[in-house]
Amino acid sequence: MFFENITVLRADGSSLDNVNVAVKNGRFSYIGKEVPPGDWGEKYSGIDRILMPGLINAHTHVPMTLMRGYGDDMQLDRWLYVKIFPIENKLTGEDVYWGSMLGIAEMLASGTTSFSDMYYYCDRIAQAATESGIKANIGRGISCFDDSKCFIDLPAYGELSDLVTKFHGGADGRILIDAAPHSEYTTKPDILSDIADFAASHSLRIQVHISETNKEHLECVGRHGKTPALVMKNSGIFDLPVTAAHCVWLTDSDMQLLADNNVYVAHCPQSNLKLASGIAQIEKMTKQGIKVALGTDSAASNNNLDMLEEMRTASLLAKGVSRNPCALPAEEVLYMATRAGALSQGRYDCGDIETGYCADFVILNTTHPSMTPSHNSLSNVMYAAGAADVEMTVVNGRVLYCKGDYPYMDIERIVYETRQCVDSLLAR
Amino acid sequence: MFFENITVLRADGSSLDNVNVAVKNGRFSYIGKEVPPGDWGEKYSGIDRILMPGLINAHTHVPMTLMRGYGDDMQLDRWLYVKIFPIENKLTGEDVYWGSMLGIAEMLASGTTSFSDMYYYCDRIAQAATESGIKANIGRGISCFDDSKCFIDLPAYGELSDLVTKFHGGADGRILIDAAPHSEYTTKPDILSDIADFAASHSLRIQVHISETNKEHLECVGRHGKTPALVMKNSGIFDLPVTAAHCVWLTDSDMQLLADNNVYVAHCPQSNLKLASGIAQIEKMTKQGIKVALGTDSAASNNNLDMLEEMRTASLLAKGVSRNPCALPAEEVLYMATRAGALSQGRYDCGDIETGYCADFVILNTTHPSMTPSHNSLSNVMYAAGAADVEMTVVNGRVLYCKGDYPYMDIERIVYETRQCVDSLLAR
Repeated sequence: MFFENITVLRADGSSLDNVNVAVKNGRFSYIGKEVPPGDWGEKYSGIDRILMPGLINAHTHVPMTLMRGYGDDMQLDRWLYVKIFPIENKLTGEDVYWGSMLGIAEMLASGTTSFSDMYYYCDRIAQAATESGIKANIGRGISCFDDSKCFIDLPAYGELSDLVTKFHGGADGRILIDAAPHSEYTTKPDILSDIADFAASHSLRIQVHISETNKEHLECVGRHGKTPALVMKNSGIFDLPVTAAHCVWLTDSDMQLLADNNVYVAHCPQSNLKLASGIAQIEKMTKQGIKVALGTDSAASNNNLDMLEEMRTASLLAKGVSRNPCALPAEEVLYMATRAGALSQGRYDCGDIETGYCADFVILNTTHPSMTPSHNSLSNVMYAAGAADVEMTVVNGRVLYCKGDYPYMDIERIVYETRQCVDSLLAR
Repeated sequence: MFFENITVLRADGSSLDNVNVAVKNGRFSYIGKEVPPGDWGEKYSGIDRILMPGLINAHTHVPMTLMRGYGDDMQLDRWLYVKIFPIENKLTGEDVYWGSMLGIAEMLASGTTSFSDMYYYCDRIAQAATESGIKANIGRGISCFDDSKCFIDLPAYGELSDLVTKFHGGADGRILIDAAPHSEYTTKPDILSDIADFAASHSLRIQVHISETNKEHLECVGRHGKTPALVMKNSGIFDLPVTAAHCVWLTDSDMQLLADNNVYVAHCPQSNLKLASGIAQIEKMTKQGIKVALGTDSAASNNNLDMLEEMRTASLLAKGVSRNPCALPAEEVLYMATRAGALSQGRYDCGDIETGYCADFVILNTTHPSMTPSHNSLSNVMYAAGAADVEMTVVNGRVLYCKGDYPYMDIERIVYETRQCVDSLLAR
């Protein structure tokens, strides 16, 4: 594919106006002012268009689209115990598959090209990601409330082993399997150590929740005399490449620990606000050298999977809370949502518009009223754009979404099947 | 027009499933389970659709779409004095007209049917509102930095008088003219009193900025020994129906004053965050009996005019800051953005879906992935919907926007002319 005279917005916020972009074999082959010789296949006019890196949703639970709007405006415990856990107990693999397809369709329509997920029935999430064409780091959430059990006794152990065998590096590398201890409060230090060993021996990355709520954080300190971050460190988890979701209640020394261990924080501002978990101190983290990516968390606590909106919330919230309008400027947040996200997934050739990188990108239409005028492309993307402005979403050079159409997904069937799953779930 | 089997979402958050809605002569004629006899004109299937009140943007400066993205991530003073004021000094009526058309197009595409505006060249804003079919309360911003001047010496006095004569109640009542003293810090008590007298004698409503920043609030106290709210009260402004934008730094007694005087607060959370002005205490205000509407403020400090997004930010922010997930629940924020907004504009027959009310409404498509499944229509509107889900926007029974098309606006020309205005502005 070949884009003529397009505005390229890079992960660092810099832009190139009126350039040509050529894609071949799923990668960017040329970005510049020349017209490179050769047959590049389909040609697209880039007039009034921005080409930017695909957004990376660094933390979600995609099948939970099934629970979008199922419980809101509730205290966290009631929400979990009255609403979410009971319905999750009834989920089948089929539900998880259709919920994943729905969430993937939503992400593609809002410019996301890769996501990191933690859930169960992960084979069905991997199936959905494989079929849809999106990229995904999929972690089988591991928890254990039985002190007598060790990691290999858990069903999650067998499932994770199978997932690694069947899917890790599958679909041309689009699917990666991560090890995903759910959190300190849902596991034990010895299980965390076993997971760390397993991950090390299979070269897996780690996804984990850390200090999402103050209660969880303080109870951990009560239990272990250590913060959740220190429990992770002492269990060997931080010896692996880690993405830690939320991190709302990190102490200063936790922050130093995360910085020293190259842990990526997956900041989920909308979910943290909606569940009233608190407000993560992202400016402070980045100043301390912590790498930050951005995630939506699940549609049950957001309630959408729109990373454009998540970027805007991250930036505006940081400014408002710090009373500093220069806090988390557009270029920093764009980097979090693109290149940092890709690096958090171990996808070193993704998340930016560079020759040789995977052609994972989004085309935005700048003739829409909300994208007019064009004083500054970066600003319009960060502070004005919405899913309505996303015209095309491309992964590995394949157009997965274009103007409401999904060439590789039967969206009508997905919506139909999702509704069937929900009706059946509620009746179970 | 006639909608069959549609889900109606009312301003109070209640919903009616599978009802029929008939519109005649610009008003709702029937809402219910029957098929009322008669010819209702065009028939629409309501399957997979939500019909909800049009959103009311209770505070904006619509021509400032021209400055969208012109300055971001800057300290307030620099933003104002280096960016905004210099470019505003060069604006012409033509610029204001095209900027208004652009902003109106953006608002229609995101479900807004009426807006309250404070700016200048208001005849051109009124022209844009008249032509586009939207409703607008238009206030000529009044400021005065010359102690020797009184209200009738100001150009704004003559302009306001002309606006009232030419436009107040015009376009079948769609256009209302408000008196709009900019703020305490840009006027003087005697001018405020004169404006109050003028407004009273012409039965106008008031738009004003109150306590947007702490600096402004404290400087007023230093100047007058009174808060901005008390200056307004003592100048007679609160004897009129008032919409006060921002109100971030109200004291407890200010809140009592606003409640006692039936002042509507126009809460602008995204602008307040972006400019780092602070976070208005909306929960506290509503508990004290203050009526709250919702606004985007201008596209220069937001940077869009999307009220769906503004609703979500209002609700999520209140929860996060208060650490209470039940704060500002969906039904309260929907009411703010619809019925309360209409009442703040003095439009008593707008802002809800009721027989006899003006047919100002929005149709949302619930087959979109982000609106699926439909556990709860209100929740999906509040916590998931975006402009991409808005299918149709109707004012006084006229379809002003449908699936990207504007039957009464030449959107290509508007985008073209806006860009011309911006190029010319920057070259002046």
